[in-house]
Amino acid sequence: MPTLYHHPMSPASRFVRLILSEYGYQTELSEEQPWENRRDFLTLNPAGTLPVYVDDSMRALCGATIISEYLDETSGIMKRDRRLLAEDPFQRAEIRRLTEWFLQKMEADVTRPLVRERIFKLQMTPDQGGGAPDSKILRTSRSNIRQHMKYLSWLAGSRPWLAGDRISYGDLAAAAAISVLDYLGEIDWSDAPSAKEWYQRLKSRPSFRPLLAERVRGVTPVSHYADLDF
Amino acid sequence: MPTLYHHPMSPASRFVRLILSEYGYQTELSEEQPWENRRDFLTLNPAGTLPVYVDDSMRALCGATIISEYLDETSGIMKRDRRLLAEDPFQRAEIRRLTEWFLQKMEADVTRPLVRERIFKLQMTPDQGGGAPDSKILRTSRSNIRQHMKYLSWLAGSRPWLAGDRISYGDLAAAAAISVLDYLGEIDWSDAPSAKEWYQRLKSRPSFRPLLAERVRGVTPVSHYADLDF
Repeated sequence: MPTLYHHPMSPASRFVRLILSEYGYQTELSEEQPWENRRDFLTLNPAGTLPVYVDDSMRALCGATIISEYLDETSGIMKRDRRLLAEDPFQRAEIRRLTEWFLQKMEADVTRPLVRERIFKLQMTPDQGGGAPDSKILRTSRSNIRQHMKYLSWLAGSRPWLAGDRISYGDLAAAAAISVLDYLGEIDWSDAPSAKEWYQRLKSRPSFRPLLAERVRGVTPVSHYADLDF
Repeated sequence: MPTLYHHPMSPASRFVRLILSEYGYQTELSEEQPWENRRDFLTLNPAGTLPVYVDDSMRALCGATIISEYLDETSGIMKRDRRLLAEDPFQRAEIRRLTEWFLQKMEADVTRPLVRERIFKLQMTPDQGGGAPDSKILRTSRSNIRQHMKYLSWLAGSRPWLAGDRISYGDLAAAAAISVLDYLGEIDWSDAPSAKEWYQRLKSRPSFRPLLAERVRGVTPVSHYADLDF
């Protein structure tokens, strides 16, 4: 069975888990602490990023973009109306733009610093950079959330799904990032009714269930985290 | 004619210019100063990143990954042995991994901070963050170059082209980043004979000529920058 090296609080890992589940693939999960720079893991992926997908022939695919393109080329293409990337090149470009937005731009502006300060640093040794969260970084990241939620609300309010008429990688990428921030109680839903309605639809999919059941050491999720009707 | 919004010292912009030129496409170039956050530019690409490709129907494609995938789907696929992405999904994954390595990882570790400190800050107003380079950032980025040059040398020494037997997006991405650092005199070639031999081959291609003729205000390139036999 293929193995996915992941971390429960990595949006890119969650994104790939959602794709695999939507396409009905079984994968063994292996949790990786990315700050440990484990030697064997760096042999698999010299860039040290998550997730990494290792297939039955022990070939490694590194990173969410590369794994998701590979899964589209080898599986998605056969899924017809359940395909998570479009047929039309411009529509594909729009799906990729949104996937990048949530897994790279929002990741840099908001998710990576918040997860690092609030979760990873609790588990890191002082040598690895562990310790108390930096309040300045928390403040900046939290003020960046607002812009991203505005954009998400605009997308969710103006299209059936974020990239158009059908669910796509764009929705899974956004929901992967939002679910991590929601676990941490960082999302103010009262301000974003259309984003909320969109996220409820995503949360209700069977592929989302394992993510909602997940807990990380030392940080309890906000009370509505697994609630489908929050 | 399509327009490419770019900056001469942006590796991602240079990468797309190389692809367009290798495939024989004419594009109008429009230089964009990314730190200005120009309103009309942000309408094209809300993420504010370069390059942006606007086709004849005024549809915008944002960012190097998205543009390069689009060009492969609409042009590359017809180029047979001149195609810059492979047919095999695993080979495609390896090309994408290297493209990401040089345009994202090396960009974050080395190129973006060096270009910002040494070029952009000269042209930015104090309000925009302009001023003298930060010597600590210069030091860190320069020490990161060594690891990346080691990896490049290993790739160039063990394969005909970086991702395998044929020239690919991986080579163009790496050469785009290296050419910016070489302009700034940041590459020590004496230590990297196989990388140097590889870069000489790239530099000699007609697609590279416009990049070697380019100059940015206030920063003269190192003397061997445009030299094919450096």
